[in-house]
Amino acid sequence: MLRLVGRAARCWGARRAPPGPEQAPRGTQHPMAVQRACLSSAAGTGAWPKDVGILALEVYFPAQYVEQEELERYDGVEAGKYTRGLGQQQMGFCAAHEDINSLCLTVVQRLVERGRLSWDAIGRLEVGTETVIDKSKAVKTVLMQLFHDSGNTDVEGIDTTNACYGGTASLFNAAAWVESSAWDGRYAVVVCGDIAVYATGNARPTGGAGAIAMLVGPNAPLVLERGLRGTHMEHAYDFYKPDLASEYPVVDGQLSIQCYLRALDRCYAVYRRKAESQWQQAGIQRPFTLDDFKFIIFHTPFCKLVQKSVGRLLLNDFLAAPNPDTAAGLYKGLQPFSGVKLEDTYTSKEVEKAFQAASQEIFNQKTKPSLLLSSRNGNMYTPSMYGCLASLLAQSSARDLAGSRIGAFSYGSG
Amino acid sequence: MLRLVGRAARCWGARRAPPGPEQAPRGTQHPMAVQRACLSSAAGTGAWPKDVGILALEVYFPAQYVEQEELERYDGVEAGKYTRGLGQQQMGFCAAHEDINSLCLTVVQRLVERGRLSWDAIGRLEVGTETVIDKSKAVKTVLMQLFHDSGNTDVEGIDTTNACYGGTASLFNAAAWVESSAWDGRYAVVVCGDIAVYATGNARPTGGAGAIAMLVGPNAPLVLERGLRGTHMEHAYDFYKPDLASEYPVVDGQLSIQCYLRALDRCYAVYRRKAESQWQQAGIQRPFTLDDFKFIIFHTPFCKLVQKSVGRLLLNDFLAAPNPDTAAGLYKGLQPFSGVKLEDTYTSKEVEKAFQAASQEIFNQKTKPSLLLSSRNGNMYTPSMYGCLASLLAQSSARDLAGSRIGAFSYGSG
Repeated sequence: MLRLVGRAARCWGARRAPPGPEQAPRGTQHPMAVQRACLSSAAGTGAWPKDVGILALEVYFPAQYVEQEELERYDGVEAGKYTRGLGQQQMGFCAAHEDINSLCLTVVQRLVERGRLSWDAIGRLEVGTETVIDKSKAVKTVLMQLFHDSGNTDVEGIDTTNACYGGTASLFNAAAWVESSAWDGRYAVVVCGDIAVYATGNARPTGGAGAIAMLVGPNAPLVLERGLRGTHMEHAYDFYKPDLASEYPVVDGQLSIQCYLRALDRCYAVYRRKAESQWQQAGIQRPFTLDDFKFIIFHTPFCKLVQKSVGRLLLNDFLAAPNPDTAAGLYKGLQPFSGVKLEDTYTSKEVEKAFQAASQEIFNQKTKPSLLLSSRNGNMYTPSMYGCLASLLAQSSARDLAGSRIGAFSYGSG
Repeated sequence: MLRLVGRAARCWGARRAPPGPEQAPRGTQHPMAVQRACLSSAAGTGAWPKDVGILALEVYFPAQYVEQEELERYDGVEAGKYTRGLGQQQMGFCAAHEDINSLCLTVVQRLVERGRLSWDAIGRLEVGTETVIDKSKAVKTVLMQLFHDSGNTDVEGIDTTNACYGGTASLFNAAAWVESSAWDGRYAVVVCGDIAVYATGNARPTGGAGAIAMLVGPNAPLVLERGLRGTHMEHAYDFYKPDLASEYPVVDGQLSIQCYLRALDRCYAVYRRKAESQWQQAGIQRPFTLDDFKFIIFHTPFCKLVQKSVGRLLLNDFLAAPNPDTAAGLYKGLQPFSGVKLEDTYTSKEVEKAFQAASQEIFNQKTKPSLLLSSRNGNMYTPSMYGCLASLLAQSSARDLAGSRIGAFSYGSG
């Protein structure tokens, strides 16, 4: 339930992998120069290093998938319920020999080997996951096997859990570590991984699986903008896993969508307030709107919810605008909604339809490219939003990305 | 598997609660002045605030306990096995209406109410626990109920897990947040709580339960010394909870003691290297030894292991000393051990006995006072070491503590 904003301050060194069976980004690499720069920088000097953010990103998802059209037929539901209704094309699932440990071992090994890093260049490793196969032992210590031959055991960080939000919590912890007095000049690695499976029923087509590892440090091409994030945390039972012996969650789908949209409203409000406050200090007086994001990415339970969410953000902009022009332009025809209250509209089909239509072009330009992996692989839980980030980076040229602000909405239930 | 060092830079505002049935510290309070100072300090200025550490600490443990002598008789083991052998007097256990959520709700509410804080003065709340009653929903979001009336939902941090180490990971994350660009001038709250229960057998008398909440911010009376901590992380199956439907862990007691002592050796080595490096930069050339700690506290699975650990640290000092005097003083009679290798001695009764005897006075002075809660309540898992800290603070005068360096060893299995 958080918003982070990355700004591609320089060209992002993303390379597309050769097209393979997965047909999606397989990770990005960064030059050796970055490693040397990081390791030689002066840690512990009492000031924050420059441009802390994501230096490289590695994605893993299963080779197996089911076509959502076939799943519709198998489940005996009307054609298009999963494809057009949810916006999902395929759903990835793990082979019998895979588990959360193997997914995370794979991405971390690939991140380090493809980035030609040495294992002792890493001083922190944290794992965000809600796929619990041991109530005490962390995935993190399983990953320490990869460090064994290097002799490096001085690696902080453990596992962190709050439904799909664990990856973002880990990223924030890693960035804070790099800015803190505890930083010793080495990289942090953030891992998020999950296997999302549901019992027979409405939620089953919203499964998925995968893991993402990110290299975090200073002088990053993808920078976390300082002081610009908003958090909304509340107690809810929209999605939880109280049956410890079962892989399946308990889900209240309608409640979960409401919780998601309310968190989006609240995070966007806090975020805009902080952004406008920073501008005011620089002498700029104007409201923050979606125009100020080049791209917007979301935690993606299913793609259709993300399209609705873009409409929701436009509703927020509309209600915050002092005198929105409803005669022409973006807000044309939205006059009937000028008096609505956000909290009254979570189940309103009229509001949803009107603002989804009004935001269609914004969605197409700023968000649709980021849904490649989500639509083809499903919901990876903690890595979901970072899969959107990877999809966006893999499909954009360095020229398109340089200087861009990417709005990011990370959500975890409960 | 970590070492943190706090230095009581100023008088610690601890007050003993009136003697109650638990006969142990019930928490410490801090003056309102601290709250105002924290909230008015300049966050986000690009530099670390001063003296980041623990401002207040609240302890909760169950009212019910079993006498270890009675447990010896009930289990049909020889008299003294749990009391003299493990060093345990009583073991706390939860009532039927308590769970991990209720323990944590209680300590957080007491910390805030007794400290006369407002709920919107808190900007981060993280929970370290290995008592998992839901695989997805965090204890953290349950605690958000306490914030409801204040309207404060902008509270970062979730749950974090790696056996008994989660509390220390949370504390480090909180301190890094206060030093980072994400800090907005508000307090962080760190919560650790667990219910430790074992199946019938050798490990059963090493159970316990409790929760501790800590208020973290700048200008703290108990400061985390910057740049001075050592971490050792490795993959092990000494203690884990693979049966998700069971409350009981799987334990290899002998292996776990070896893992604990090896982590102690490694953390102390890294810690000393960092301390000596800081001294060298200040022109001081001498080895770091136990003399440089006024007190030493430990994660306490059972009290006897802590006494052995003090001996183990003395063995480290002895082996690191260039020319230890074995004719007189601290190392008298230890000549036969001058050539041993640390890694060969984890199961050596001779080494253990000799160094435990040699370190008896160090243990009595620097560590024994910290074992009050551990010996009377048992192993609380994540809060264990912080229970030792509370025991120490509650039994020492402000004069004794001012300017003291407390060495702290936090351990989590797996």
